[in-house]
Amino acid sequence: MNPRRRSFASDNVAPAAPEIIAALSRVNTGTVHSYGDDPETRRLAALAQETFECELVIHPVATGTAANSLALASLVPPFGAVYCHELAHINTDECGAPEFFSGGAKLLTLGSPNGKLAAPQLAAPIAHAREMGVHHVLPAALSISQATEWGTVYRRDELTALAAAAHEHGLKVHMDGARFANAVAHLKCSPAEASWKCGVDALSFGATKNGALAAEAVIFFTPDLAREFELRRKRAGHLWSKMRFLSAQLNACFENELWLRHARQANAMAARLAEGLRKRGIALLQPVEANEVFAAFPAKLSAALRSQEFEFYDWPVPAGSSPAVRLVTAYDMVSDDVDALLAAIPASSA
Amino acid sequence: MNPRRRSFASDNVAPAAPEIIAALSRVNTGTVHSYGDDPETRRLAALAQETFECELVIHPVATGTAANSLALASLVPPFGAVYCHELAHINTDECGAPEFFSGGAKLLTLGSPNGKLAAPQLAAPIAHAREMGVHHVLPAALSISQATEWGTVYRRDELTALAAAAHEHGLKVHMDGARFANAVAHLKCSPAEASWKCGVDALSFGATKNGALAAEAVIFFTPDLAREFELRRKRAGHLWSKMRFLSAQLNACFENELWLRHARQANAMAARLAEGLRKRGIALLQPVEANEVFAAFPAKLSAALRSQEFEFYDWPVPAGSSPAVRLVTAYDMVSDDVDALLAAIPASSA
Amino acid sequence: MNPRRRSFASDNVAPAAPEIIAALSRVNTGTVHSYGDDPETRRLAALAQETFECELVIHPVATGTAANSLALASLVPPFGAVYCHELAHINTDECGAPEFFSGGAKLLTLGSPNGKLAAPQLAAPIAHAREMGVHHVLPAALSISQATEWGTVYRRDELTALAAAAHEHGLKVHMDGARFANAVAHLKCSPAEASWKCGVDALSFGATKNGALAAEAVIFFTPDLAREFELRRKRAGHLWSKMRFLSAQLNACFENELWLRHARQANAMAARLAEGLRKRGIALLQPVEANEVFAAFPAKLSAALRSQEFEFYDWPVPAGSSPAVRLVTAYDMVSDDVDALLAAIPASSA
Amino acid sequence: MNPRRRSFASDNVAPAAPEIIAALSRVNTGTVHSYGDDPETRRLAALAQETFECELVIHPVATGTAANSLALASLVPPFGAVYCHELAHINTDECGAPEFFSGGAKLLTLGSPNGKLAAPQLAAPIAHAREMGVHHVLPAALSISQATEWGTVYRRDELTALAAAAHEHGLKVHMDGARFANAVAHLKCSPAEASWKCGVDALSFGATKNGALAAEAVIFFTPDLAREFELRRKRAGHLWSKMRFLSAQLNACFENELWLRHARQANAMAARLAEGLRKRGIALLQPVEANEVFAAFPAKLSAALRSQEFEFYDWPVPAGSSPAVRLVTAYDMVSDDVDALLAAIPASSA
Repeated sequence: MNPRRRSFASDNVAPAAPEIIAALSRVNTGTVHSYGDDPETRRLAALAQETFECELVIHPVATGTAANSLALASLVPPFGAVYCHELAHINTDECGAPEFFSGGAKLLTLGSPNGKLAAPQLAAPIAHAREMGVHHVLPAALSISQATEWGTVYRRDELTALAAAAHEHGLKVHMDGARFANAVAHLKCSPAEASWKCGVDALSFGATKNGALAAEAVIFFTPDLAREFELRRKRAGHLWSKMRFLSAQLNACFENELWLRHARQANAMAARLAEGLRKRGIALLQPVEANEVFAAFPAKLSAALRSQEFEFYDWPVPAGSSPAVRLVTAYDMVSDDVDALLAAIPASSA
Repeated sequence: MNPRRRSFASDNVAPAAPEIIAALSRVNTGTVHSYGDDPETRRLAALAQETFECELVIHPVATGTAANSLALASLVPPFGAVYCHELAHINTDECGAPEFFSGGAKLLTLGSPNGKLAAPQLAAPIAHAREMGVHHVLPAALSISQATEWGTVYRRDELTALAAAAHEHGLKVHMDGARFANAVAHLKCSPAEASWKCGVDALSFGATKNGALAAEAVIFFTPDLAREFELRRKRAGHLWSKMRFLSAQLNACFENELWLRHARQANAMAARLAEGLRKRGIALLQPVEANEVFAAFPAKLSAALRSQEFEFYDWPVPAGSSPAVRLVTAYDMVSDDVDALLAAIPASSA
Repeated sequence: MNPRRRSFASDNVAPAAPEIIAALSRVNTGTVHSYGDDPETRRLAALAQETFECELVIHPVATGTAANSLALASLVPPFGAVYCHELAHINTDECGAPEFFSGGAKLLTLGSPNGKLAAPQLAAPIAHAREMGVHHVLPAALSISQATEWGTVYRRDELTALAAAAHEHGLKVHMDGARFANAVAHLKCSPAEASWKCGVDALSFGATKNGALAAEAVIFFTPDLAREFELRRKRAGHLWSKMRFLSAQLNACFENELWLRHARQANAMAARLAEGLRKRGIALLQPVEANEVFAAFPAKLSAALRSQEFEFYDWPVPAGSSPAVRLVTAYDMVSDDVDALLAAIPASSA
Repeated sequence: MNPRRRSFASDNVAPAAPEIIAALSRVNTGTVHSYGDDPETRRLAALAQETFECELVIHPVATGTAANSLALASLVPPFGAVYCHELAHINTDECGAPEFFSGGAKLLTLGSPNGKLAAPQLAAPIAHAREMGVHHVLPAALSISQATEWGTVYRRDELTALAAAAHEHGLKVHMDGARFANAVAHLKCSPAEASWKCGVDALSFGATKNGALAAEAVIFFTPDLAREFELRRKRAGHLWSKMRFLSAQLNACFENELWLRHARQANAMAARLAEGLRKRGIALLQPVEANEVFAAFPAKLSAALRSQEFEFYDWPVPAGSSPAVRLVTAYDMVSDDVDALLAAIPASSA
């Protein structure tokens, strides 16, 4: 058992993959033009188009918050509304970054038990907005997380219906793909089928949680929407002068499908973990479709595991519910890591 | 001669130093807490305090624009004024980032022939602002570049007088230290003597141009001013989840004074270049005190050099003046690189 | 019956009171200094202090949205959170103005069946915010509407408890008093007892709905909080050059308690209307405590009344509920106006 | 002599014209729909189209700062540049309002001795901006003041050439017409000839300085640019609920050309004042073309006049120049007022 892998706190506690570090070394030679006018960044554009099988515009940034916020700011005016799930990372975990980057746009939240939004949920709030006229922020975008914050994955038909409804209402569709790789791995479809073919206009493509050091990309499948992106990125301090080091990380992900192999491994570990928990009689709060497991852990169990240096977060539940935890697996985790956690759970825990 | 080193365009065309890449590999092991709660980031705080010989707050970010803008946003309200040189990078090269981060603060520019501001320049504009009351933005900060955009370096007595004047007028003092290392190397003083001992409240400490991959730091010598910084950084998408990789770069800079050795090398190369140009009868526009040389290059000379793949930028000059160029040296440049450029200049160029 | 008074749509469809127009004429003589350095504006400060029996800072503006947003921007940083009711006007009817003025602060909404928030509702969301650290916007203010958007009025003990809880959590307390006059009239207490004595830090004092032409005031009972207000007001284009005309309206309200007489009349008309509806068997959705009546009107009844040129808004109700309407009375309405509406309701309506 | 008219400080120290107050009374009857859905506001649209002889979109607001800032925010993105004169009111007197409303756009200033910009001044800065790419804010608009802050008036050929140059560079053209009436009166042309026929896209039409109580209008001659204006206005708290009172003021201005009669009177008074000063040997700093006179007043003269309660502002002059003052006439001033000032100037003053 590898003692270093007792953290199920998040996929961002993991180190970078050796391929990523190697890519940094590989491009670390000689002078190249700065700010993205370099071969590595040009190669990124080519690799992304190949991966997604379409014309697109791709711009790397270092963090997921930057990717989401810059994407949204490109899609909505300062007086715009972004519809999203109440648990969406953009709404709960980014300290108001979308509001900052957009100049004050408003996130209007919708609920659901499994983290997914459904097409019919849009009609009523948008009809209300239209009726309110200038007193209401202008409906401008839908933002969905794939995989969701509940570790579930939109099916392609769900996505297609949702994006179609959004477009019908005049909204642009943004996908927070911090765990897009895990979703594609689950769906067993092509990246294209999981994104623009379903109607996604702009994708925050995550790599950091999936093995990169610090690299995400904003991908516009509707290139018109990218027109101002580069100005916004510079203005937000997210344009690297030594851009080759950002692009190289993403290239390493796309090459030989490293990103998908990583995601499959993380997903497999989550499935293994879920299966083991079920066998021990522990209830799962959601189907496990990506690399997150939400489990009903009695307080005593959590304490016992933490005393053995296992790490994971408590997950907020409605008053009166049993306590729950979130367990996240990652690309660098192996069966022994999962089994060690399972072995530490007494048979009588549930 | 090393053929890769024909670019004098900027210090950011250089690769990262081997020590930086090695540091990334060194910290790339095991899980650590994300978002800065890690040993490497704690070590950064200790190293910075040792280097600057004082209590301070240090926060790493990936770009100079982010460092400057986040620092300024911590010092001025949205309705504030930042006094700076008309050539200041924050005014000319950051696509309005200080305005964006601060929520619309205004840069009020002052001039001077050598890129430096002088203490007596503040009184009149601030008196005017006070007289105008609510009709004028509120004087809030002074931002100075050290080294300046003209490659000159404020002397310590100049800095002290300027910061004292600013403080007297109720302004906070920000230093854009994208090339702080080069300034310290020139001044042959301690980092403390070049910063807080002269009255600097907040410093953007540059590392990227000086050998890092992508790393800068905001240092608050007046810790009270840092109170909201972490919220602003997260909100701007500049908080790395895998923070160890940002901190490790800065630690590698501070260890064994790598940053100063790099800066001394870059400065020495600029001095060598300046001396060689002078010998060839080429006029320099400014004293060469850091790692930038501004030289009067006839158009024909520039064309000839560029045809041999030397790279450098034309520098805007007043109408009627002789054309000029900016030549930037860097930490990774050696005498042969400089001599190759000099050798390519015909004797009769001036 | 006065044919002009068939609109129960809003209190802002009413004309200005004769006293207000007279005040404009009265001050329309000779030159005076602009931007508030005039006798009328100085008199406003005196009248307000007398009315509220305390030291305070008062600044007039022309609209309620400006008053609310400027007040909130003075209380919360751009990365701050404002807790408010989900139906709060600032959340639903101001096109994101609080977000705009504050530079992107976030409104975090709480619910309740009657439009009022209760002290115990704050603890859980604020504990969550503290735990989330920099990933969550910073809890900064509580904003409450008095009277509420449901036409109910916080009792003084409710207010006191709520403000105390807010202060305990480090929040400032803002009161949206677009209908503060109606609330005071209902509570039969002094303005002081309805505001700062309960813990209100900043009050948006409404006059437009209550007989003014276009006049509201931001009142800071904690004068420190007003420090930057004048700069924010100017910067937002809300500083009138001919300020006397704004101050004169408010002075006319305060003189001889015109504002309270107006509010009592509006409240009395609402009470009369509510009583008449009850007699006709029509259910009211909320207790009628100010000048708004929410009534279950069958669609047929609404249509019948509208065909007779009565005006009022449909009020959104949960799916499956009976349709409802909002009926608003105003200072200029008399018993005959109310009785005419009641007379138009067939006995068999409910 | 009317003792009340000793202030030449500004045209905004004047009261409102009787016609304006009468208009307020006239429309103060019965209920009307709020927020601009009223007959008076519809009439404004008709009157403006008649006055300007074209299709246009007109939106009233209460202050000039609001008009300018909302207009500019409609024309430029947050990362945009507005070119303007260094003395432009938007640059010097609005506490950063254009920056606030636009979300941080940058004012890039140009100079000239008489307050006017000339077409050839645009080429160089815009070429520089294009070359700088994402590092420079995006050239987006030209804003000119007519009449200028120096009391001069652009000739129609000057305007046409300037706007054509701006359009050629892809800029929109905004005119700050706080004293547009005075300019039209001076030019003796039609309002159309002074605005859209010269290439103006958006005009801030001033009425407050010209006899209104508090009323300005933003007029879009390129209606596409007005698309988002109403959302921006609401969001900024500049949408009046009782809009009739704002529209009525502007209607009173347009009716019977009150606005032009007022401006002609103010201009005539300035001309009379200028003539009188010249006769007394006092130098004027600029041609007097609107309602402002800039005169070289020795300190002793200013003091003597102020001791007799005449009011006017000192005007900043370059170090070493003779002191100067600004004298502003207004619509309500008569020859006796001017002559009283002249009479108070000793023959030996200059």
